Amino acid sequence: MAQYPQVLDRTFSALADGHRRTILDRLGEGPVSISELAVPLAMSLPGVLKHVRALEAAQLVVTDKQGRTRWCRLGARPLDDAAAWIDERRTLWGRRLDRFDASLEDASR
Amino acid sequence: MAQYPQVLDRTFSALADGHRRTILDRLGEGPVSISELAVPLAMSLPGVLKHVRALEAAQLVVTDKQGRTRWCRLGARPLDDAAAWIDERRTLWGRRLDRFDASLEDASR
Repeated sequence: MAQYPQVLDRTFSALADGHRRTILDRLGEGPVSISELAVPLAMSLPGVLKHVRALEAAQLVVTDKQGRTRWCRLGARPLDDAAAWIDERRTLWGRRLDRFDASLEDASR
Repeated sequence: MAQYPQVLDRTFSALADGHRRTILDRLGEGPVSISELAVPLAMSLPGVLKHVRALEAAQLVVTDKQGRTRWCRLGARPLDDAAAWIDERRTLWGRRLDRFDASLEDASR
């Protein structure tokens, strides 16, 4: 998985914008067209498409053009890589803090 | 928590760079100075400081100047907000897929 760091760069970068997180939340309810996404975001179609492209680059979203309509849906495994990276650190750092607490307890006996 | 979306923007933005993720991994082992961080990153001190500032803005890292040395350590609750946002979506989307699978099963009976 040589591309893993680049995938993480793209995933975290895609998530670093409130509009893009709102798009993901909407897609969590089911597939929608770019035009339908534009309404609640109060944004132009090219503006929405730019955000969708960033989400697509991170494999968080998949799009599919049918006639003149581009449909968007969540990717097959959205957020799995980001969740794995974060969970691994939280576990490691939690263990380190536990060891630190234990050594403080030993020292105070 | 009115600042929550901005905190998420800063957190995900801070995580969207391999150098910054490497810095977090190093700090997971314990506090280090900016100079010590610079060695494995093969980066200038101002370069490291710039990344550390981005991590600091996201409250992932805390720094403390003692004499001429700036020490860096992990923030008190690093990654908690990012993990909460991601876990909430994965749970919601997982439930939606479960309902979808169940409706497919019903339809095939």
